[in-house]
Amino acid sequence: MDFAHDHRTEELRATLLAFMDEFVYPAEQATAQADEARGPIWARPPVLRELRAEARRRGLWNLFLPGEHGAGLTNLQYAPLAEITGRSPRLAPEALNCAAPDTGNMEILAVAGNEEQRRRWLAPLLAGEIRSAFAMTEPDVASSDATNIATSITRRGDQWVVNGHKWFISGAMDPECRLLIVMGRTAEDGPVRDRQSMILVPADTPGVEIHRGMSQFGYSDDDHGGHAEITFTDVAVPVDHLLGEPGSGFAIAQARLGPGRIHHCMRLIGMAERAMELVRDRAVTRTAFGRPLADQGVVQEWAAESRVRIEQARLLVLKAAWLMDTVGNRAAHTEIQAIKIAVPRAVEWILDKAVQLHGAAGVSQDLPLARFWAIARSLRLADGPDEVHLRSLGRRELAPRTAH
Amino acid sequence: MDFAHDHRTEELRATLLAFMDEFVYPAEQATAQADEARGPIWARPPVLRELRAEARRRGLWNLFLPGEHGAGLTNLQYAPLAEITGRSPRLAPEALNCAAPDTGNMEILAVAGNEEQRRRWLAPLLAGEIRSAFAMTEPDVASSDATNIATSITRRGDQWVVNGHKWFISGAMDPECRLLIVMGRTAEDGPVRDRQSMILVPADTPGVEIHRGMSQFGYSDDDHGGHAEITFTDVAVPVDHLLGEPGSGFAIAQARLGPGRIHHCMRLIGMAERAMELVRDRAVTRTAFGRPLADQGVVQEWAAESRVRIEQARLLVLKAAWLMDTVGNRAAHTEIQAIKIAVPRAVEWILDKAVQLHGAAGVSQDLPLARFWAIARSLRLADGPDEVHLRSLGRRELAPRTAH
Amino acid sequence: MDFAHDHRTEELRATLLAFMDEFVYPAEQATAQADEARGPIWARPPVLRELRAEARRRGLWNLFLPGEHGAGLTNLQYAPLAEITGRSPRLAPEALNCAAPDTGNMEILAVAGNEEQRRRWLAPLLAGEIRSAFAMTEPDVASSDATNIATSITRRGDQWVVNGHKWFISGAMDPECRLLIVMGRTAEDGPVRDRQSMILVPADTPGVEIHRGMSQFGYSDDDHGGHAEITFTDVAVPVDHLLGEPGSGFAIAQARLGPGRIHHCMRLIGMAERAMELVRDRAVTRTAFGRPLADQGVVQEWAAESRVRIEQARLLVLKAAWLMDTVGNRAAHTEIQAIKIAVPRAVEWILDKAVQLHGAAGVSQDLPLARFWAIARSLRLADGPDEVHLRSLGRRELAPRTAH
Amino acid sequence: MDFAHDHRTEELRATLLAFMDEFVYPAEQATAQADEARGPIWARPPVLRELRAEARRRGLWNLFLPGEHGAGLTNLQYAPLAEITGRSPRLAPEALNCAAPDTGNMEILAVAGNEEQRRRWLAPLLAGEIRSAFAMTEPDVASSDATNIATSITRRGDQWVVNGHKWFISGAMDPECRLLIVMGRTAEDGPVRDRQSMILVPADTPGVEIHRGMSQFGYSDDDHGGHAEITFTDVAVPVDHLLGEPGSGFAIAQARLGPGRIHHCMRLIGMAERAMELVRDRAVTRTAFGRPLADQGVVQEWAAESRVRIEQARLLVLKAAWLMDTVGNRAAHTEIQAIKIAVPRAVEWILDKAVQLHGAAGVSQDLPLARFWAIARSLRLADGPDEVHLRSLGRRELAPRTAH
Repeated sequence: MDFAHDHRTEELRATLLAFMDEFVYPAEQATAQADEARGPIWARPPVLRELRAEARRRGLWNLFLPGEHGAGLTNLQYAPLAEITGRSPRLAPEALNCAAPDTGNMEILAVAGNEEQRRRWLAPLLAGEIRSAFAMTEPDVASSDATNIATSITRRGDQWVVNGHKWFISGAMDPECRLLIVMGRTAEDGPVRDRQSMILVPADTPGVEIHRGMSQFGYSDDDHGGHAEITFTDVAVPVDHLLGEPGSGFAIAQARLGPGRIHHCMRLIGMAERAMELVRDRAVTRTAFGRPLADQGVVQEWAAESRVRIEQARLLVLKAAWLMDTVGNRAAHTEIQAIKIAVPRAVEWILDKAVQLHGAAGVSQDLPLARFWAIARSLRLADGPDEVHLRSLGRRELAPRTAH
Repeated sequence: MDFAHDHRTEELRATLLAFMDEFVYPAEQATAQADEARGPIWARPPVLRELRAEARRRGLWNLFLPGEHGAGLTNLQYAPLAEITGRSPRLAPEALNCAAPDTGNMEILAVAGNEEQRRRWLAPLLAGEIRSAFAMTEPDVASSDATNIATSITRRGDQWVVNGHKWFISGAMDPECRLLIVMGRTAEDGPVRDRQSMILVPADTPGVEIHRGMSQFGYSDDDHGGHAEITFTDVAVPVDHLLGEPGSGFAIAQARLGPGRIHHCMRLIGMAERAMELVRDRAVTRTAFGRPLADQGVVQEWAAESRVRIEQARLLVLKAAWLMDTVGNRAAHTEIQAIKIAVPRAVEWILDKAVQLHGAAGVSQDLPLARFWAIARSLRLADGPDEVHLRSLGRRELAPRTAH
Repeated sequence: MDFAHDHRTEELRATLLAFMDEFVYPAEQATAQADEARGPIWARPPVLRELRAEARRRGLWNLFLPGEHGAGLTNLQYAPLAEITGRSPRLAPEALNCAAPDTGNMEILAVAGNEEQRRRWLAPLLAGEIRSAFAMTEPDVASSDATNIATSITRRGDQWVVNGHKWFISGAMDPECRLLIVMGRTAEDGPVRDRQSMILVPADTPGVEIHRGMSQFGYSDDDHGGHAEITFTDVAVPVDHLLGEPGSGFAIAQARLGPGRIHHCMRLIGMAERAMELVRDRAVTRTAFGRPLADQGVVQEWAAESRVRIEQARLLVLKAAWLMDTVGNRAAHTEIQAIKIAVPRAVEWILDKAVQLHGAAGVSQDLPLARFWAIARSLRLADGPDEVHLRSLGRRELAPRTAH
Repeated sequence: MDFAHDHRTEELRATLLAFMDEFVYPAEQATAQADEARGPIWARPPVLRELRAEARRRGLWNLFLPGEHGAGLTNLQYAPLAEITGRSPRLAPEALNCAAPDTGNMEILAVAGNEEQRRRWLAPLLAGEIRSAFAMTEPDVASSDATNIATSITRRGDQWVVNGHKWFISGAMDPECRLLIVMGRTAEDGPVRDRQSMILVPADTPGVEIHRGMSQFGYSDDDHGGHAEITFTDVAVPVDHLLGEPGSGFAIAQARLGPGRIHHCMRLIGMAERAMELVRDRAVTRTAFGRPLADQGVVQEWAAESRVRIEQARLLVLKAAWLMDTVGNRAAHTEIQAIKIAVPRAVEWILDKAVQLHGAAGVSQDLPLARFWAIARSLRLADGPDEVHLRSLGRRELAPRTAH
């Protein structure tokens, strides 16, 4: 259990911190003002183009991706960097080309894509020239279990034909989104874990219809391509658009989960740290009951609790990352579930108190806290509600065992 | 402690329940679809006009207002009706002309307004012809303590001149909003509770500038006039626009608080009951782990906990209402603070579980749950954060006493 | 819903409060000192004899028992009196002949006993001449469901023969305990709710063997007859010792539950109020961080939270009592379960904070807080763990319904 | 941050686990039965003598003590071993001569004692020939702040004379207790942190009077020397009995805290693991609602939550231990406070659920759960209530800072 930052991580951390201070944080306010001026619009903030160029210049590009195609960092190396990007979750992850769902999609393409698929899709994604979406969740089934997916992918001559109904497909309404990786059933029988496949669907394929954006606690995330409801009606693509073998969809999805959890959880911890900075600023400058908030016992308890929870959350994520790097995702199963359960709610608690400390400003668009909160809260549902993970973890915990 | 519904309350309850079933609930979906089609717009849903006419026909009008000017119900009589309107908080309260902030403003005018003020403003408000806003909260001070208010109201000849900066002024961006009741300082010295006054400012008075709407967890509440940031720059009104005597602002504000708390809390309980209905529907129709959600222990615990919390919340509000009716607001001080503390968080908990049970749909615009949640959460801050009330109640609780 | 104290309740309340002040509280310290001197001993504190005489003189006797045999109070009338006795739970309930398990046993005898049974057992119990125990819980089965009880009651000629193993039989080790009401199976088939019976077993019947006292968090409650583990080996009693008809045991047990819950919950609330008094005293006299505890925000929040929880708990119990009086135990089912769930944990929370505020003294024998806590905690298990009641209540809550 | 067990730790872990299985666990039941037979008695269970001999033979002796006098383990090495002893907290720590308060006293003597003091007291303590107590807590002051201590240590000729009143002095009633390390004031002015000293008081010094044992939630811990109330009346000892320089008491006490926290917290985690084993056993063998407890969602959630909390608690303690070893106690200040706050309550939660799962048996003497609970709960007060540590940690957290 060695969680220390190694030399490379420390260097990248320093570079990233400087980038945040010099470019990202200053861009936040301008972006927010522009938002209010223009209203909702399905496009990224213009400043992102500059941020991306600058990040690339500084060697802060594709840090999330292990192996030859990316920066080659381990999960443990990338984790503290993901945390830093979480401090400005709207700008920093994209600035570094490290934003979901593109990250997961690039991982899938790097691991399961063939050469042609990687050339056509992975290359421009790595270059930041296009965006992508991952179409798994369906309104009619409990999508946390991939084996429930009802969308069909049927062979018809030299084509696969997709029919189905998806929603909460993040990023799909971005004008630059060119690719949908769609999860569906290629088999109706056989082992349940061998029925699903993933298929690459160019966004402009006929039959793909985007209906609307779904909101999360009032946020449409329009500036990140939103969360689309999409129907697929006789959407035909060539046979070579399938990822890996037919029936490999569930296995690919599982492999994708672990790193994504690390990223999400570390970014949440970054949001919590950002919130703590805001709390500190407010607590020393704002007075109530005749004394600075920082001198009040209740506020001190909140701050202490927040620190204790952040410490515990971060250690748990680092352990999961380290296990994934050293013994593999399967052996890290309990820890990967544990961070899914523990981190969003810890951060949600911290954000709730930070909102409370800021009064009306805390719930408003003037501070990032309410939006952070909505992200943390929604992650208690994403990839399956906490309860699914609690049950699964609990079942293993209650199984008879011999070891100490 | 007699909390029973009396005959009149029962009759009105039946009338109101029928109105909800026949008119309000059916209008909800149409309204939601219209929203998505048109995008944000500072105007009320068109269906409200019909709903208001129908409610009036059925004798469901101005039920909130005691005394000769309104329906003459006691707090205890109105409470269960307010609960029912909370089941459709966007449409029902306005349909009955019982929506904040107009309700509080009408109370103020009824109690503290002189004949001319009542003629000019109370009459059209009671008739539902105009809307109003209550401008108290300021961005720069802890506005939960009215004595902190910094906006100045200065005498200049036969005019009062208002200068100040307000935000989260609900309803002010409604095109029908004609009146702002503004809280400000008419004196810089003397007893702190005698420095504030309330003044009637026609919305179109020169110097009143509305800058933007503040959001609450992503919701702009644009269809209810939003939550405006407003500056008052040398806003001059005739001397007779002051409410009551100079220095009476704090006392009037205090009087306004109690009934408002009852209304808010009972509507929250109505939202919780609505959520329970959705939970029931989902729990029997949705399957996970091979069994209906309703058969699962964790879901059963949530439902039971929700019921226990609703029961306790409602009893506490009814006791507060009954005390206000029988011994007055001052003697009900502890209970009025207690419901402010207890009810929003109880309902927040219930809504959180209801969201969780509904998965992605729960956080989205397809169900009212996320919006309900944002209302409940924001009420932990409105009228002062919970912590202010906890401290105040705790201080009284710890004071030496003699009685049992 | 009229929860007001009526005239008789007010009079009795005043009498009881005076009795507490003049006799009970002064006796507490002497009793505690005597305890330390003598060590554990299965006998009641000697002062109880005087207290009982005095209570009887003042008309504070058998207040718990409705109907002709007792004081004839309703549940709603007795509830506030039970609360007061809870402030000194070791002395006051017994002083008034209102202590469990005798109360439940007297109720059973009054309702289900025949004339001879009432003459032989109810009369001396009402007179406070003997004590009794209720033998239901068994170590090997989930006894919260009476249909699980495994003890057999078998007919053999003109005798019933009892064989079984019970534990946590409160009061059985009191030297004055003369009667055990034993729950067991008189039938092995037929409807499950018709298989159980209750039988009267004189404590000195051959075959009744008391093995040891069970402790609850370190407390043996030796001064109240403890919580005995008992085996029944071929314990033969005459046929007329059965209570009611064979197979009526479950129904009698159900009837006994409701009032017992009210008593337990109201006494817990009395303990919470007593704790609040101790908190107040400590908070104004003890200094930390250079200020009295009463001036510290965290302590003020605890006090406020405690008050809010007490208020909600009491209202819920009063509603349950009122429903039992007006529509019967069956119709009050949800409320009776709700108080079982809500009150012990609310009081446990309050006591936990009171302990914390008192530091080391809080956990010790010098204050009643730790013992109160153990009582509250154990009540989360007595009559079935909370989870059983949550599930049952939740299941009803999730059942389809029509009413509003 | 390298928390891995090194080779020596792994070897000792294996040795210790074997010792637990072969000797300690089997001795538990015999000890418990002996307890019931004999009643409270101020002496250790006889089996401890054998256990201690066996532990010593196996090289499991004085493992807690770093440096030349002890086993020389680091905090990080000892931590997982302390966890294992926590699984049988009544027997295992003493069997290894690693039980509080002797451990802290030996640390003090090793670090601050002179040669003669170490010869006279440290040697027999290390050999397990005598026991000792640490007399700091006083009934009349908030002893969590050592500067509040009121006991006086006054120079009179060639003697120090101690006068004061202490309580909760653990272990002092053990017949083998020969030494009291007493904290008191040697100066009435000067810097507040230089007024305290520690002095070695042989237990049989005239003027030392033990009055009684204090209980913790009903547990007297009589078999571990209890928690004594002691008065010191003109207790005179030679001048060379002072530890270190006059005025060094506070500094010595601070140094003693860190390792003790690690020990306590790791033992608590061991108790939690033991509880989890009991939970597993019960969950697969006990049936309710027609299914094994292990198949029920609520039980699965408890088990999962328990695992998540144990993981987080252990990582935090290991980090604190690692920091103490690598950068020192002072730099580990935040983490040492954090484990004091986080671990007892996490374990308390886990134990509460384990108790609940076991029903009446859970609160009784038949399982170690209720006693474990009382230990965890009391640790929320020992060394100062959590609130003191929260405030202190929170204050540092809210202080302005520059680093990321």
